[in-house]
Amino acid sequence: MTKFAIGVDLGGTNLRIAAVDGDGKILEKLTTGTEVLRGRDHVIDEMCAAIQNLSLKYAASGALAGIGVGVPGIIDLQTGMLRESPNLPGWQDYPVREEIESRLGTTVVLENDANAAALGEKWLGAAAAVDDMCMITLGTGVGGAMVLNGHIWHGDRGMAGELGHINIETDGVACGCGGRGCLEQYASATAVKRMAMEAIASGKAPELARAMNDDPEFSAQAVYRMAAIGDEPAREIFRRVGTALGIGVADLVNIFNLPMYVIGGGVAAAWDAFAPTMLKTAKSYSYIYRVTAKDGNTVITHALLGSDAGLIGAARLAMME
Amino acid sequence: MTKFAIGVDLGGTNLRIAAVDGDGKILEKLTTGTEVLRGRDHVIDEMCAAIQNLSLKYAASGALAGIGVGVPGIIDLQTGMLRESPNLPGWQDYPVREEIESRLGTTVVLENDANAAALGEKWLGAAAAVDDMCMITLGTGVGGAMVLNGHIWHGDRGMAGELGHINIETDGVACGCGGRGCLEQYASATAVKRMAMEAIASGKAPELARAMNDDPEFSAQAVYRMAAIGDEPAREIFRRVGTALGIGVADLVNIFNLPMYVIGGGVAAAWDAFAPTMLKTAKSYSYIYRVTAKDGNTVITHALLGSDAGLIGAARLAMME
Repeated sequence: MTKFAIGVDLGGTNLRIAAVDGDGKILEKLTTGTEVLRGRDHVIDEMCAAIQNLSLKYAASGALAGIGVGVPGIIDLQTGMLRESPNLPGWQDYPVREEIESRLGTTVVLENDANAAALGEKWLGAAAAVDDMCMITLGTGVGGAMVLNGHIWHGDRGMAGELGHINIETDGVACGCGGRGCLEQYASATAVKRMAMEAIASGKAPELARAMNDDPEFSAQAVYRMAAIGDEPAREIFRRVGTALGIGVADLVNIFNLPMYVIGGGVAAAWDAFAPTMLKTAKSYSYIYRVTAKDGNTVITHALLGSDAGLIGAARLAMME
Repeated sequence: MTKFAIGVDLGGTNLRIAAVDGDGKILEKLTTGTEVLRGRDHVIDEMCAAIQNLSLKYAASGALAGIGVGVPGIIDLQTGMLRESPNLPGWQDYPVREEIESRLGTTVVLENDANAAALGEKWLGAAAAVDDMCMITLGTGVGGAMVLNGHIWHGDRGMAGELGHINIETDGVACGCGGRGCLEQYASATAVKRMAMEAIASGKAPELARAMNDDPEFSAQAVYRMAAIGDEPAREIFRRVGTALGIGVADLVNIFNLPMYVIGGGVAAAWDAFAPTMLKTAKSYSYIYRVTAKDGNTVITHALLGSDAGLIGAARLAMME
């Protein structure tokens, strides 16, 4: 009898739940919008109902190895409390793990969503061949994770890996964290949209303005579509993403000297628009990258599992416990 | 019979060699200027003669546990080559470990000087009570080291911990590493002196100008003496040191979430001149620092072993092997 695990990726926008087998194959995946406005209890209720449905459905074909849940924000791993989660308004100091466990009547493994995604990419994705890696996840915000000696580096209070808050510009754009000029303000989907709005407001981005008027859901993805067809203001926005990421990755190379840095999350789909600037900038700002990249000893690459990385990593985590 | 080890701290300015016993007590310490201009072979000859003298002298009272040598710059630990060392001109790609071993006829443990200093502070200094720590060493350059799970984190090619090259200002002061705006350009002794020269050149630092004229050896230390007696331009220089360090440490807190960050090296003697700005800046730029510092779960402090940290750490390393 094979085993399977339930992996959950609770995002500010989407809630994804999957049954994953021991080889990482997704047996079934449920995706719904996260109804944040209906409150945290509603979201947790819906998540737990789906977990129970999937568990029952696959119980006949294998043993449930565990349930792993990736959530955005800073988790206190000791208490299972969400300490800060800008993308889940109202969830601050919410005992997420306790709430899930009391509904399911079983233990769950809680993990930061970026850590879960890194474990997914480490297991079956871009970083399958290395022991140590760092992942930067470009979503609504920018998350991060380090796998050192094969394990997530959680830090003293489970708060490590806040790579979206590496400083890029001392007096830069104000950030939700209270700082200024954080990587997140230049490389998240939110930042791409903000930079597009700024370009439109300056009157120098007529095609972006037209795209925005035509599309009530105007998003980072729409800006990328404009960049992909050669719109110069849109291309410039992704060069700015690349510069910020290049500085951030150079910092990480100078600090860690890891063999691999993986860029994932929705904005990573715009890889061809930001990667050339990112790699050039990383070369400028890191001697170590310059001397090690040419021998293939430092690789900066894009994630391979797309939006499934977090799900797969959360399931993997449940199997590892 | 007790054991002892020889620890060496080969700096760009000073060469220090000590016999250290198993409790970390320095039995004897030799300090000479590093005669860099007489060439690397001369420096290595002199170092090895001193190591042999000390080894013989203490051989009667204990067993030699090993020889540890801390050297500045980026070391390829696999080959024992010095890959880059701005403070030892002409040493690039010099097989340091091989040269020492061939003269002494025995193996030696080579380590980056900042890593050695961190091990010293971890063993007997500021970080004796924690398992994980990060140290930033403010000397001629700025070095760094991380002790994770009790061990130096070397990275994939032994090049990790280049914390002096964390980016502080995208278009900042050009750095010897090829980048711009590196922490080293704002927080090293070299940077303090450069900022003092800039202040003098601007005509707005008359007391610093007088101090420089009076003192042919005008140094970062002299700038600190001026700050300590309240000279405003000198104080402003150390506030700039504090801002840069605060951003760098905030990055490290956001990345690692360690319980302790230790600031050492010669410039750390100016702690009271830069620490208030550093701590305030770290609070601004790190949510994690804000929430954990108040409970004492993140401590940013100064080193305790002074210029002996590297020596003691190098000796410790030799005992650990």
